[in-house]
Amino acid sequence: MLAAMSRPIIGHLDPAFIAMMEEMRAMLQSAFKTRNALTLPVSAPGSAGMETCFVNLVEPGDKVIVCINGVFGGRMKENVERCGGTAVTVEDDWGTPVSVDKVESALQAHPDARLLAFVHAETSTGAESDVQALCELAHRHDCLALVDAVTSLGGSPLHVDDWGVDAIYSGSQKCLSCTPGLSPVSFSERAVERIRSRRSRVQSWFLDLNLVMGYWIGSDGKRAYHHTAPINALYALHEALVILHEEGLEASWARHRRHHEALRAGLEGMGLHFLVDQAHRLPQLNAVLVPEGVDEAGVRAALLERYGLEIGAGLGPYAGRIWRIGLMGHAANERNVLVCLGALESILAEAGAAVPGKALPAARAVYGEQLRREAA
Amino acid sequence: MLAAMSRPIIGHLDPAFIAMMEEMRAMLQSAFKTRNALTLPVSAPGSAGMETCFVNLVEPGDKVIVCINGVFGGRMKENVERCGGTAVTVEDDWGTPVSVDKVESALQAHPDARLLAFVHAETSTGAESDVQALCELAHRHDCLALVDAVTSLGGSPLHVDDWGVDAIYSGSQKCLSCTPGLSPVSFSERAVERIRSRRSRVQSWFLDLNLVMGYWIGSDGKRAYHHTAPINALYALHEALVILHEEGLEASWARHRRHHEALRAGLEGMGLHFLVDQAHRLPQLNAVLVPEGVDEAGVRAALLERYGLEIGAGLGPYAGRIWRIGLMGHAANERNVLVCLGALESILAEAGAAVPGKALPAARAVYGEQLRREAA
Repeated sequence: MLAAMSRPIIGHLDPAFIAMMEEMRAMLQSAFKTRNALTLPVSAPGSAGMETCFVNLVEPGDKVIVCINGVFGGRMKENVERCGGTAVTVEDDWGTPVSVDKVESALQAHPDARLLAFVHAETSTGAESDVQALCELAHRHDCLALVDAVTSLGGSPLHVDDWGVDAIYSGSQKCLSCTPGLSPVSFSERAVERIRSRRSRVQSWFLDLNLVMGYWIGSDGKRAYHHTAPINALYALHEALVILHEEGLEASWARHRRHHEALRAGLEGMGLHFLVDQAHRLPQLNAVLVPEGVDEAGVRAALLERYGLEIGAGLGPYAGRIWRIGLMGHAANERNVLVCLGALESILAEAGAAVPGKALPAARAVYGEQLRREAA
Repeated sequence: MLAAMSRPIIGHLDPAFIAMMEEMRAMLQSAFKTRNALTLPVSAPGSAGMETCFVNLVEPGDKVIVCINGVFGGRMKENVERCGGTAVTVEDDWGTPVSVDKVESALQAHPDARLLAFVHAETSTGAESDVQALCELAHRHDCLALVDAVTSLGGSPLHVDDWGVDAIYSGSQKCLSCTPGLSPVSFSERAVERIRSRRSRVQSWFLDLNLVMGYWIGSDGKRAYHHTAPINALYALHEALVILHEEGLEASWARHRRHHEALRAGLEGMGLHFLVDQAHRLPQLNAVLVPEGVDEAGVRAALLERYGLEIGAGLGPYAGRIWRIGLMGHAANERNVLVCLGALESILAEAGAAVPGKALPAARAVYGEQLRREAA
């Protein structure tokens, strides 16, 4: 994938590149499990993908129900307000999923809401919300459903068409294992209809899908220059999607789950506790509570310096209180799980916060059990 | 530079990466010839750099004088309007520079204007405008000056501080010879002051410099997560800036000029005419008129297929009427000049639109003269 990035630059309207764009769109449709024609990578990171969804779907005065159970719900609210919309927030504790009941009450209380926005996989906590139930609710109340799938795409089950998602964005650098800098998005026919019938212009020229479509999809077989696409970053995304396609989407989901189970066993083996209940826990983002008295930042620094291993810090109310261990894309493998467990246990043991020798056997037992199950 | 892109990905808050960011900022300051603290690459292509300047500097109701002498002035007007501002346009023929006199009249007629926006090097025509004179005018009328330097940065003289530019954006893929996808920007103290004293929030969350600064510059030695930076694209920009630094900025300007002179002699030798008057002609973008009766697109296709050489088509009123031959960054070299002239002359000769054997001697004569001048 990294080698793909350093292929020679070609023109962003070169026929060879346009053929590559078409392959990318088809592979993104597979990854999102959608037939949406408007499926493409935005030429900027996930935050710009989020903004693409909001600036195109929200008009001044629109009411939007925004679910907040972590950092990224809060960012959605910012986006709505900057588009001149009114955000009605539904708040849940960080580390818990979005409450379907609360959303239903909000939709009932605000029959003029036009959009429901929520995060599928909260990167700040590792909690997964029920996309299908929330989309059904949105449609029952004449709302479109807008979903953040930055951390879920490619890593855990996501069915854009079957679940009725209207607008979705992701990031290239999470479970797709591509370099950061691109944001795959997809829009349903209903969403496209709403964009086409806007009363006002999209406030962003760069992210205006009416213009972006002219380049990525074209009309009458012709493509119009909009902005210069980040050619080499797109080579990398193409390659990452080929790799995902070769493994198979469901196989990738299963792999993330498998290594998460081993990691979980190891983390619990060394006495750590997860922030999120098992039922709503994402395999690709493992948030564990920092044990009492342990220097949270010191442990992360030691992991990075001594083992070349980076784990995430807590954000918002959990700053200094959790570690976030990613198992995303090709990083979700047995070697990483065992190295992470061994390294973390050593550092915690030095701080007197763990007894060495527990984590690895627990993880290995899970891997052994998985092998036996497969063999059976 | 391409090899730099495929270095391993590291975290966007990794200390090693932060050191690299600081080097990039210093090298960008050199390239822009500025001491502006707010100098950084936006994590998206040049169009997003343009939008960064407008969304941060324009508030609803603001009046902006926008100079249009090509595609990109028109895009500036779009940006102003999408920010809720009023654009007063000063129009000049495509292929001519922005008229300083017309701008002065517009500033006198609109004493409430807060910003003057224009393009230094029009990529759609190859015309250069007088940045210094226009910035002086802007300041005399209490306006900030916003400059598009997408095609000029690194390729022809540009002095952000000495000329009094307040906001400027460029692109990574032109004379910096980096991959497309990043947009270096720089803002004067006056511009930062205006951003800090805004009455309304910046309409884009992704491009809000108040937030971007928290990541790229930080405060109290701490950097805040805003969006995930495109790490590998930034490796490439870092490398491109090192290469520019090693050559020297003035040496790069001189090299662009030198190869332009040879290319010009060759193009004129085969009977082609430039769109832009010599006094306002950019060395890095050579727009020549398509001879009567020649299949404009067919020539470009033949250059690409037979010689692997891509030249640009005309845009707007010059669609089908000009070719745009770029000599940018490391592509501005003798080999490219001679290959381009030889290939174009062959194709035109086949179409009966040129007599073979004129272009190369004319270009070689210029190179010979340059060598004699240097030796003297």
